[in-house]
Amino acid sequence: MADPDPDPDPGRLERLERRVRELEEELARERRGRGAARARIHTMSPEVTDSNPYSRLMALKRMGIVKDYEKIRTFTVAVVGVGGVGSVTAEMLTRCGIGKLLLFDYDKVELANMNRLFFQPHQAGLSKVQAAEHTLRDINPDVQFEVHNYNITTLDNFERFMDRISNGGLEEGKPVDLVLSCVDNFEARMAINTACNELGQIWMESGVSENAVSGHIQLIIPGESACFACAPPLVVAANIDEKTLKREGVCAASLPTTMGVVAGMLVQNVLKYLLNFGTVSYYLGYNAMQDFFPTMSMKPNPQCSDHNCRKQQENYKKKEAERPKEEVIEKEEEIVHEDNDWGIELVSEISEEELKAASGPVPDLPEGISVAYTIPDKEENLITGETVTESEESLEELMAKMRNM
Amino acid sequence: MADPDPDPDPGRLERLERRVRELEEELARERRGRGAARARIHTMSPEVTDSNPYSRLMALKRMGIVKDYEKIRTFTVAVVGVGGVGSVTAEMLTRCGIGKLLLFDYDKVELANMNRLFFQPHQAGLSKVQAAEHTLRDINPDVQFEVHNYNITTLDNFERFMDRISNGGLEEGKPVDLVLSCVDNFEARMAINTACNELGQIWMESGVSENAVSGHIQLIIPGESACFACAPPLVVAANIDEKTLKREGVCAASLPTTMGVVAGMLVQNVLKYLLNFGTVSYYLGYNAMQDFFPTMSMKPNPQCSDHNCRKQQENYKKKEAERPKEEVIEKEEEIVHEDNDWGIELVSEISEEELKAASGPVPDLPEGISVAYTIPDKEENLITGETVTESEESLEELMAKMRNM
Repeated sequence: MADPDPDPDPGRLERLERRVRELEEELARERRGRGAARARIHTMSPEVTDSNPYSRLMALKRMGIVKDYEKIRTFTVAVVGVGGVGSVTAEMLTRCGIGKLLLFDYDKVELANMNRLFFQPHQAGLSKVQAAEHTLRDINPDVQFEVHNYNITTLDNFERFMDRISNGGLEEGKPVDLVLSCVDNFEARMAINTACNELGQIWMESGVSENAVSGHIQLIIPGESACFACAPPLVVAANIDEKTLKREGVCAASLPTTMGVVAGMLVQNVLKYLLNFGTVSYYLGYNAMQDFFPTMSMKPNPQCSDHNCRKQQENYKKKEAERPKEEVIEKEEEIVHEDNDWGIELVSEISEEELKAASGPVPDLPEGISVAYTIPDKEENLITGETVTESEESLEELMAKMRNM
Repeated sequence: MADPDPDPDPGRLERLERRVRELEEELARERRGRGAARARIHTMSPEVTDSNPYSRLMALKRMGIVKDYEKIRTFTVAVVGVGGVGSVTAEMLTRCGIGKLLLFDYDKVELANMNRLFFQPHQAGLSKVQAAEHTLRDINPDVQFEVHNYNITTLDNFERFMDRISNGGLEEGKPVDLVLSCVDNFEARMAINTACNELGQIWMESGVSENAVSGHIQLIIPGESACFACAPPLVVAANIDEKTLKREGVCAASLPTTMGVVAGMLVQNVLKYLLNFGTVSYYLGYNAMQDFFPTMSMKPNPQCSDHNCRKQQENYKKKEAERPKEEVIEKEEEIVHEDNDWGIELVSEISEEELKAASGPVPDLPEGISVAYTIPDKEENLITGETVTESEESLEELMAKMRNM
C-alpha cells in the first residue's frame, strides 16, 4: 500500500490547534463580558500595573494636581437626564470612581440616539436608565447606582425627586453632594431649579443648542450665584440666523462632538469642585463654529420670582456677614471675576432696547453669550401677582448698579 | 506490512477544522446576540423617526449648518493610536457615519485603561484595534473598517503604513482624506509627520499632557502650516511646577474628561474641515485648570530639518503664485490670524534667553501656549549635518521677521 500523500503543509495542525485555543479564549471573554467584568476593588491603589483601573487617576496625586483623589469615593452625584450629555457625564464619573450615582430619565433608547456617544443599537427599546446602569456597572462595579425611570416634572414624581436628592447620599438619609442637569427642556430645568432652591442644593446646569454647534455649563450655588429663575438662561451665540432655526415640526440637530465636549467640561468642573483643584467655572460656553469658549459669573437677582432663591440669598448674606473679615475678602475674590485672567474682553451684545424691555437684572454679558429670551415687563401684562419695580434708570446706571450688587 | 510511523489519529485535522468553524460561528452568534445591532442603511435619510440613526445629523442641513451632510460617507479617515483620545475619536466618526476608518495601534486593552472612555473591562487582553472594530461595527455597520495591529515606527511597518495612507481610501488605490494622530509618544508623531510630509497628506495632531489637565489639537497642511519638525511641539501651559511632573518610573495621569474634550475638539475640527462649515482651527489648546482655550496658527520653517517639508513649502509657494490674485488674498486672510476675533490677547511667554538659545524660528506664542522644549543650537553641539545660521538679531527683530514670513 502506498503512503498517503505527504502533508504539503506540516505546520497546519499546529496552527489550527492554536486557532482553536484563541477562539475558545475569545468566546470565554465575550461571555464573561456580559456578566461581572471585573471584581470589586476595596481600596484605590496607586500601584502601576496593567490590572489596576485606578493607577492613572491616583497618579494625579503624584503629579501635584489633586491632594486626595480617593475622596471621590465619598461623593454622590445625581444626573438628571441620561441623553447625549447625561450618559457621557455618568460614564465619565463612573470611570473616575465616584461613590454613588443617581440617574433620572423616563425615555427609551432609540436608534435615533445613535449619533451621540454611549448607547448602542442593541439597547434600543430599553429604558435609558436601565441600559445605562447595565453598561456602567460592567465598567465599574465599585460605583453604587440608583436609577429612577420617571419624569421629575409631574407633581408626585417631583416629590420623589426631592426626597432622593435630600436622602439619597452614600449614607441613606444624607443629601447628595451635587445635582447635574443634563435635560433638554425648560420645564425639567425649572423643576431642578425649584428643588435645589428649596433644598439649598448646589447644582450644575448644562445645555446644547438646537443647531448642535454650541453649548454651555453653569454652576449654581443657591443664594450665591444666579439661579435659573433669576434671569433668562444664558446661551452661547452661534452667530447663525435664528430664522433658520425655529420652524415647526422640525427635530433638533445633535453631534457627538459638541455633546462630548460639553459633558467633558461639565465633569471636569465637577471634579475640580469636589476634589478642590483648579478654578471652578461659574459659566463656561462653547461655540463650535469659531472654537470660542466664553466664561463669566452672575450674581443672583434680589427680585427673583422663586421665593426660595430670595430666602437663600438672605441666608448667604447673613453667613457672609458672620464670617471673619479676611475670609470674606478671599471668598469675594473667588466669585467676582467679571473679567477673566486671560484677557478675554467682556462686551455686552444685548441692545439698550432689549435691556429696557426686560424686567429683572440683565447681566453684563461677555461677547459671545446672549440670553435665550428676555422676560417681558410684567406690569404691562399682569394685573395681580408679584411685580418688579420698573426701572427708569439709564443703561449705564443699571449696569453700574448690577456691578455693585 | 505496517506503514512507517502511521498517523495515530488520521481524522484530527478535519476535526480541528470543524471545531474552528463551530467556534467562529458561536463567537459570531454571541456577538450578534448582544448586537444583532441594526441592518445596514443604504441612503442617509432626514426622516424624523425613532428608528433613523441619521435624523439628528441630517437636521444639520435644515438648521443651515452643513450644506451636504451625506458627503461624510465619501470620506476615509485614518486614526493612528486607539487609546484615550483615538478610541473616542473613532467612535465619534463612526456615529457621524464616516465612509471608512483605518485604525492603527499595537497595544492591548488593559484594566489600567478603564479610567478613560470607550473600552470595557471584558475586552482586557484583546488588541485595541480588534476590540475597537467589534464595538464600532456594532454601533454603525454602514462604516467600512480596516484595522492594523502593528507599531508604525519600525522600518517595515512604516512602509506598510505609508502604503495604506496612499491607497487605503474608500476606493482601493486612492489615498485617505485625513490622518489623525492620537498617539502618546514623540517617535510615533515623528513617523506620521515624515509620512505626511512625503505624501503631502493633510493631518491633524492631538495630545494630552502627562498631568492630565491640558491638551491640544493641531491641523497640519504640508507646506502651508508648520509641521511637527518645523518647531518644537506646542503645549498648553498648565501653570504647574514642572518639577513635580518629571520623575523617573512614574506613570502618566489621565482623565476621561480631558481626553473626551480633546477628542471632541479634534472630531469637530475634522467635521468642519471635511464638510466645510465654521472656522477650522490650526491650533486649539485646552487648559482644564483655568478653562482656557488658546488658538493660534504657525507658518512652516523654511529651514525645517525634514527635506520633504521644505519641498512641500516650495510647491505651496508655486501654487499660491499661480493663483488668481483675489483668491490668494482670500486664502491669506484665512490662514494668518495671529489675533483672533474674540479679543484674546496674544502675549509671548517665552523668555528672551530661551528664544536666543533656540535654533529655527520660535513662534510668537499666545498666552498659555509654550513649546515642549527648545532645540539646542546645533552649531555648538554638532560638527557635521545641516545647521541653522545663528541669529544675532534682537528679540524684537526676530519677532518682526517671523511675523513677515
